[in-house]
Amino acid sequence: MQNFDAATVTYKFLAPFRGEAVSPPPVWLMRQAGRYLPEYRATRAEAGSFLDLCYNPKLAAEVTLQPIRRYGFDASILFSDILVVPDALGQSVRFAEGEGPRLDPIRDVAGLARLDLSKTGSKFALVWETVARLRQDLPPETCLIGFCGAPWTVATYMVEGRGSSDQAEARSWAYRDPDGFAQLIEVLTDASITYLSGQIEAGANVLQIFDSWAGSLAEDEFERWVIAPTTKIVRALRARYPHVPIMGFPKGATSQLKSFVAATGVDGVSCDTSCPLSIMRDVADAGKVVQGNLDPLLLVAGGAALDRRVDEILAALKGRPFIFNLGHGIVPETPPEHVAQLVKRVRRGA
Amino acid sequence: MQNFDAATVTYKFLAPFRGEAVSPPPVWLMRQAGRYLPEYRATRAEAGSFLDLCYNPKLAAEVTLQPIRRYGFDASILFSDILVVPDALGQSVRFAEGEGPRLDPIRDVAGLARLDLSKTGSKFALVWETVARLRQDLPPETCLIGFCGAPWTVATYMVEGRGSSDQAEARSWAYRDPDGFAQLIEVLTDASITYLSGQIEAGANVLQIFDSWAGSLAEDEFERWVIAPTTKIVRALRARYPHVPIMGFPKGATSQLKSFVAATGVDGVSCDTSCPLSIMRDVADAGKVVQGNLDPLLLVAGGAALDRRVDEILAALKGRPFIFNLGHGIVPETPPEHVAQLVKRVRRGA
Repeated sequence: MQNFDAATVTYKFLAPFRGEAVSPPPVWLMRQAGRYLPEYRATRAEAGSFLDLCYNPKLAAEVTLQPIRRYGFDASILFSDILVVPDALGQSVRFAEGEGPRLDPIRDVAGLARLDLSKTGSKFALVWETVARLRQDLPPETCLIGFCGAPWTVATYMVEGRGSSDQAEARSWAYRDPDGFAQLIEVLTDASITYLSGQIEAGANVLQIFDSWAGSLAEDEFERWVIAPTTKIVRALRARYPHVPIMGFPKGATSQLKSFVAATGVDGVSCDTSCPLSIMRDVADAGKVVQGNLDPLLLVAGGAALDRRVDEILAALKGRPFIFNLGHGIVPETPPEHVAQLVKRVRRGA
Repeated sequence: MQNFDAATVTYKFLAPFRGEAVSPPPVWLMRQAGRYLPEYRATRAEAGSFLDLCYNPKLAAEVTLQPIRRYGFDASILFSDILVVPDALGQSVRFAEGEGPRLDPIRDVAGLARLDLSKTGSKFALVWETVARLRQDLPPETCLIGFCGAPWTVATYMVEGRGSSDQAEARSWAYRDPDGFAQLIEVLTDASITYLSGQIEAGANVLQIFDSWAGSLAEDEFERWVIAPTTKIVRALRARYPHVPIMGFPKGATSQLKSFVAATGVDGVSCDTSCPLSIMRDVADAGKVVQGNLDPLLLVAGGAALDRRVDEILAALKGRPFIFNLGHGIVPETPPEHVAQLVKRVRRGA
């Protein structure tokens, strides 16, 4: 557990990172700024493409603030996308309406020539400006989370050219030519450090590294492509910004969560929906912050079953360094009133 | 650990189920009969649709035998599909070329009226005939594995109408109307017991229950939709056929593997590629058979890295009740000579 300095102690959200269990726990939701909110859809329509929105500091800050106004979450997460990094590196990203991201895939070492770390500044600067606006416009008690995608997960999109259910192209490259693939991971690791450093400089109070596809790797590959680059990022940031806590999210890799936490030195982890509460307790008892892990589909369903599961999660983590969250991002079908029900339930005091 | 009777002891494949570690271990590969083999593609072209092949005892037996002729695996697995069960129940299944399965989805209790357990016999009988042919045509030392999809996984296809990456429709129904969804699971559980019993009667020596989408469930849902129906199937079959070992495969649910094994009473489990070898060892040390877990993509890549990982897996499980296998099904791009390399490496004596 790090000692986070006095400049940040006003945020209730950061209490768990100082080893304090607060009751009720802090609460935020992954993708809390998003399509389930009518005000988001209105701003989105104004912005142009999805990436236009990510690169528009005024509008990106606006959508980030929307759920804070509605629900008063304890933390706000920068509205952006994990694919800003490859886009800024020169592998341009498109989002077709109703489809996922599309990139011209990079499938071998030769393709790395398309990436240029020195050119990321102009696009990163737009995101950093969003962060700066947010830190100014957010309520003083609301913590601001910066983020990036982990190198492995970002690489899977760059190599596949899109999302995929099995990350086969990236995993295959890594088997076929591990040294070449390592170069891609290294570029991403360095870009992530630059990107996150800028977010901290602009006002981010805490960071989260999203590794959405960490669960598809065999353990030796997990060690090389998830643990090693994450460790490098954590060390580099910790050296410069010891007061900023860093959370990991190796989604789908629950069985390797404890070794991930121990090896990378992250201050906390997000736990996905399938993570047993007993494992969350174990990680918390090892002195790390855990957040999670309500099923976003139960938030869609709502009702008494939602309250019941919220209570179960609260009871299981009571007295431990815990932040209430979903296990995955909120889905567009979520009724906004169910989010209100959730926040009320969490805050009624566990 | 069950006592499997003397009728089955001739199969080397079953030695681990008697608690015996054999060196080299038995070996088979998930989807060992499949598109990576030119002789499979030839038979497939002859058969008509994919389901036509599943329901053609002569041709289904032929494709099942093909990899045994090439590689002499210790076990043969019935060539069929987990969607035979809904198809036989009356929710007809189509496989469009190059796409996955398509079904007219069942999304609520009213849709269950389309299913009729009493009508499954005619289609199940074709599969049972395949099993009977196989038991006659296989080399006497080759164990025959029967299988079905687990109720949860089969239900996800029935509710979605196709494969999906998050099983959202099925999970949502289960949240919205758990008692209604339980009726679907119950029909599938009963159909699976009938289907597997017939496979045993026809000559299957061991069974595997594939729960490919077990990993998407929160732990309380996992308990209800994965553990409970699997337990019911295991108990029903064990009561009638105590000499037939049953393996589970709750894919993606490694963090709940130990409780799955303990609660369901399966004799062994398949472990997916992301399962750490230490967890496989723990399960084996608890007296259960483990099989796995080489990455199918490493089998595509081949070379020295393949040999190295095979050796690591063998070394980690040496002296324990272990069956060598992949962590997922073999992929169509696999060079057949890499499979030969793999089998040779496993058998050179760990």
